[in-house]
Amino acid sequence: MSKPNVALIGMGLIGSSLGHALKKNNLAAHISGYARSAQTREAAMDIGFVDSVHETPEAACIDADVVFFNTPLSAVKALAEQVIPGLKDNAILTDVGSVKAGVLSNIAPLLDGRVHFVPGHPIAGTERSGPTAGFAELFEGRWCILTPDDTTSLIAVEQVSKLWQGMGSEVTFMDAAHHDLVLAITSHLPHLIAFNIVGTAAQLENDTRSEVIKYSASGFRDFTRIAASDPTMWRDIFIENKDAVLEVLGRFSEDLTALQRAIRHSDADYLETVFTRTRGIRQSIVEAGQDTKAANFGRDE
Amino acid sequence: MSKPNVALIGMGLIGSSLGHALKKNNLAAHISGYARSAQTREAAMDIGFVDSVHETPEAACIDADVVFFNTPLSAVKALAEQVIPGLKDNAILTDVGSVKAGVLSNIAPLLDGRVHFVPGHPIAGTERSGPTAGFAELFEGRWCILTPDDTTSLIAVEQVSKLWQGMGSEVTFMDAAHHDLVLAITSHLPHLIAFNIVGTAAQLENDTRSEVIKYSASGFRDFTRIAASDPTMWRDIFIENKDAVLEVLGRFSEDLTALQRAIRHSDADYLETVFTRTRGIRQSIVEAGQDTKAANFGRDE
Repeated sequence: MSKPNVALIGMGLIGSSLGHALKKNNLAAHISGYARSAQTREAAMDIGFVDSVHETPEAACIDADVVFFNTPLSAVKALAEQVIPGLKDNAILTDVGSVKAGVLSNIAPLLDGRVHFVPGHPIAGTERSGPTAGFAELFEGRWCILTPDDTTSLIAVEQVSKLWQGMGSEVTFMDAAHHDLVLAITSHLPHLIAFNIVGTAAQLENDTRSEVIKYSASGFRDFTRIAASDPTMWRDIFIENKDAVLEVLGRFSEDLTALQRAIRHSDADYLETVFTRTRGIRQSIVEAGQDTKAANFGRDE
Repeated sequence: MSKPNVALIGMGLIGSSLGHALKKNNLAAHISGYARSAQTREAAMDIGFVDSVHETPEAACIDADVVFFNTPLSAVKALAEQVIPGLKDNAILTDVGSVKAGVLSNIAPLLDGRVHFVPGHPIAGTERSGPTAGFAELFEGRWCILTPDDTTSLIAVEQVSKLWQGMGSEVTFMDAAHHDLVLAITSHLPHLIAFNIVGTAAQLENDTRSEVIKYSASGFRDFTRIAASDPTMWRDIFIENKDAVLEVLGRFSEDLTALQRAIRHSDADYLETVFTRTRGIRQSIVEAGQDTKAANFGRDE
């Protein structure tokens, strides 16, 4: 098809990055945007990653060929109910949420046969949030996972794939439940752990807390980056992916208890074995092009 | 005094960085080095961060005014026993270990009145190890904590401080036990958690492990950096700082259990409250000049 009209529902980090990336790569005929807050809508127009903004999601979607939902997970169902009846025939709805099984079962019953839904998840982000946080290169060299099921239109999948590829992503496909388990390990558990350790530090008395900040270069600061991520988005992720998160958290806790026991009993061999195993994983991530090989993430350079 | 002869006992990341930094800032008359492995000694001479290398620690220390111990903690006591009898009168022994109470009680009884000991700990490092990992700027803008007690020579403390300041560090003083508690929170616990989560991933079946690597940009990769740190060094740290590490690990586990419970019961308010609290800590670390404010640590730039 010719270049689609795209609607961005939600214009935080991901929504604004979509706008920038679609424009940079000249992928959309028109980009309309909706955000709940007037301030965000204003910022979106000022920055210029959308062509128009609208006070209701319905208005933003009325001429859209492709609609991206870029909101916290808990907002998606109500938004879908609002916009689906007014969408053009054969319009495509897609999302960028971090949990996929829920969104499928929430949206599938709302589809009236005229509209297609393609669940998606770009594996990209930063600790920033809001409409000023976006940039066109966020998705370049990153994976985008789509989780269609048997009922999903292949043509719609193809079209959403092309948009992501046009923005520099590599598209891959996964079963929604499997996606949720993989992301529980690679993303949700790491964020939970980071939020937790930084939360523990935040509750220390003032004196000790200022020492934690002062000496954070000894390791702690690495955890604070992802613990600065958007609280509302993450609240929704943990609740929506509860089963998989509790499962991998159980595994993590067992392993941590074994390390705790080894420390208590001064079991040097056990500790060294575990600590040696972990170096290989870092190496593989660098080789897979998913992180910089520079020491300290290159941030001191 | 005039520029001292410095001996580096241990020439891994910290030892080699000391050599580079002492040379760059022209702080030593002569730098002698000892490492157990002939390969490391050869690398040290080839790279040129020492002026001479020696096959025994005694030989490396014979003309030294200041001796730096830069080995895993478990090697320090035996090395001190070896080198102290041969040291010049008024020679200063110092170390860079991450746990301070033990080293004081290990070395104090060995001092014969002629030699001074100043326990130290530079809050700087990378995930790299070995003699090729060092660089002159490692200590610049970073804290160096000295933990002298009542018996420590003030002149010796002064001299060690000047060397660290000359390498760009800011020197601060702390009681050894307090140091060990602060570092348990800021460094030892974060490393233990990182080793643990990466260890959990390393034990997954091959298929899942390759997915963890592929999608690591979703959060996991941040943890792998410090989990690639030297296993022997960290084995020793946890055993030597057992009490403080078990104490803060208890705190961490309690907080994690509370989050787990909130997820199980879909307690959105609790999760959002905890996740909101943690953003302030990141901000404070950036303001204190202890991390970059660039998104994703600036590694994507």
